[in-house]
Amino acid sequence: MTTLDTPDTPFAVVDADRLDRNIARLRDHLDQLGVPLRLHVKTSKSVEVAERVQAGGPITVSTLAEAEHFADAGYRDILYAVGIDPHKLPRVAALLHRGVTLTVLLDSLTQAESLVSFAHNENLRVPALIEVDCDGHRGGIAPTDPALVEIGRALGDCLAGVLTHAGESYFAYTPDALRKSASNERDIAVAAADSLHSAGLPCPIVSVGSTPTAHAATDLTGVTEARAGNYVFFDLVMAGIGVCTTDDLALSVAVTVIGHRPDKNWILTDGGWMATSRDRGTQVQAVDQGYGLVANLDGTLIPHLIMTGASQEHGVLSTRDSEPVPDLPIGTRLRILPNHACATAAQHDRYHVVSGTKLDVDETWTRHRGW
Amino acid sequence: MTTLDTPDTPFAVVDADRLDRNIARLRDHLDQLGVPLRLHVKTSKSVEVAERVQAGGPITVSTLAEAEHFADAGYRDILYAVGIDPHKLPRVAALLHRGVTLTVLLDSLTQAESLVSFAHNENLRVPALIEVDCDGHRGGIAPTDPALVEIGRALGDCLAGVLTHAGESYFAYTPDALRKSASNERDIAVAAADSLHSAGLPCPIVSVGSTPTAHAATDLTGVTEARAGNYVFFDLVMAGIGVCTTDDLALSVAVTVIGHRPDKNWILTDGGWMATSRDRGTQVQAVDQGYGLVANLDGTLIPHLIMTGASQEHGVLSTRDSEPVPDLPIGTRLRILPNHACATAAQHDRYHVVSGTKLDVDETWTRHRGW
Repeated sequence: MTTLDTPDTPFAVVDADRLDRNIARLRDHLDQLGVPLRLHVKTSKSVEVAERVQAGGPITVSTLAEAEHFADAGYRDILYAVGIDPHKLPRVAALLHRGVTLTVLLDSLTQAESLVSFAHNENLRVPALIEVDCDGHRGGIAPTDPALVEIGRALGDCLAGVLTHAGESYFAYTPDALRKSASNERDIAVAAADSLHSAGLPCPIVSVGSTPTAHAATDLTGVTEARAGNYVFFDLVMAGIGVCTTDDLALSVAVTVIGHRPDKNWILTDGGWMATSRDRGTQVQAVDQGYGLVANLDGTLIPHLIMTGASQEHGVLSTRDSEPVPDLPIGTRLRILPNHACATAAQHDRYHVVSGTKLDVDETWTRHRGW
Repeated sequence: MTTLDTPDTPFAVVDADRLDRNIARLRDHLDQLGVPLRLHVKTSKSVEVAERVQAGGPITVSTLAEAEHFADAGYRDILYAVGIDPHKLPRVAALLHRGVTLTVLLDSLTQAESLVSFAHNENLRVPALIEVDCDGHRGGIAPTDPALVEIGRALGDCLAGVLTHAGESYFAYTPDALRKSASNERDIAVAAADSLHSAGLPCPIVSVGSTPTAHAATDLTGVTEARAGNYVFFDLVMAGIGVCTTDDLALSVAVTVIGHRPDKNWILTDGGWMATSRDRGTQVQAVDQGYGLVANLDGTLIPHLIMTGASQEHGVLSTRDSEPVPDLPIGTRLRILPNHACATAAQHDRYHVVSGTKLDVDETWTRHRGW
């Protein structure tokens, strides 16, 4: 039996108990709101994780490589939620020809015209959502922008609906701010759908979502699907805005103590930024968690200790206060709970899956990568 | 012929002209100092890059996976420059049994005793360097610390020498500070060797290095090898401390314009932090370069434009001043020059190799990954 003591460190660990609890929590919440989930697989990039949510269910992807990987695994309803680069349309067409409903995203007339021209030449319907901006976070157009209807008309029968993403909800630090972000996300999406309907255009899909807003939403009337991905693992950024607690964090990185600097109150490990990523999302939060909290190998948090520094293959552990670091000899294995699960998971090609505090590795799940 | 217009973005690009120039520059400098280079392959993790430096020459690695990969490619003199975790010794032994001189690093009696015990049981000599601290950056012990001789004695015939790394040279912002960092690195390494010699112990290897100090050193008397890795590509952090200019940056990431936000003076691309990494090393420098400078697809820099924001698969380009962003239509391909070549390269599995401003992709080099 492989245990967390077996493989050489660093490696990624997933606690399946926490994973399943996180999955059940959002499922229950969205069931109450009567809105189906469209899992975003960009966080785990793992078929095994998606299967625990809903085998073969609707998914969101961040790259066409993900779409192709999940199509190979039998997924047939895939939304590619990054504005479409016309150069990528041949790969979109290849997926459509395989029987996958691959829906793309766009927010300009240029993209719509490229898509329609391509679809016409290929004699293919390429379903597209129009990206709507709800909080100035990234792309998208306002629901009242005349361009919305113009793009909708240009899309013709490729028009599949609208999508918005409350990216600023990652910076909503109170339950009230989170609820407002969620209701605003819903309101903007529904307003965009209304704009299309008022112009006599169809809008079958009204897609919203982010991990914070999916959990904070109390009313999703008019919305046809909610997207979330990070929540399967959660992370310190999500704990920092109160969407979860540190007890919910399902992803961590196993590392080994390789040195000590008592003069600096440091413990050195073999887990640097290559293993955790450079993501320091909590740096802008009320509590800066460094590169991550530190747990024993069984996942129980070690008080005071955080990962304060990182070279490529070295981690520095120290204490937030002036507490001396605990006595952790060379060879001691620990787990680092990361700032940002999406970024940390991306540094690894597989997950070692455990249940709760047990060290047995029940399964190894592979992770997809690339574009 | 594949050109930079062919593959779907994002992807990593290496300018072989700049790469060769960077390689020649350090070779000439170290030749003048009479010290051989031990290339650190952690930046490129590419056999093709190492071949351009010295096919089959001595190398430094940051993981045993790198050591195994380069051993497969015929490299026989490999230094694993991260403090050894005793759990990893079986993989070290496997490399030694293959005829690779795999030298490990340590800075504690515990590690030395584990290593000697392992070597004894395996009837194998495991060569080890003692890590010496020259600037408080990471691990290592002071050259005057009695532990140095104690560890040296414990190592017995496994003792191969000393190693130091001026990690703080990355924060040396003037030519004078860089020279001082380099001379200090040399002085500390030689002092450590002297301590061992004074105790009657051998110290055949005196290893120093970092990209900044390898270039700034003017005298390496007593040193037997210099290590550097980042310099093959260089990056904005290195340009920020004056070790190179932005014209020397050999690594970039090709991205495509996928949207515009004129209200925010933003251009959106399909290259987010998954393509550039989250590394923001220039954040602490005099000039914060955001996530990177922006060039046309032929590598010529676009004035004013920088990558100011990143989601997983979205990049935000804007201007440092109040200049309006240039008119770059949907589908325009650009190149991002990154903060930290080691971190950005790690996000990719291959390099598309071009020469200077030509768009032709002459070769594709694979990159190794994992632990």
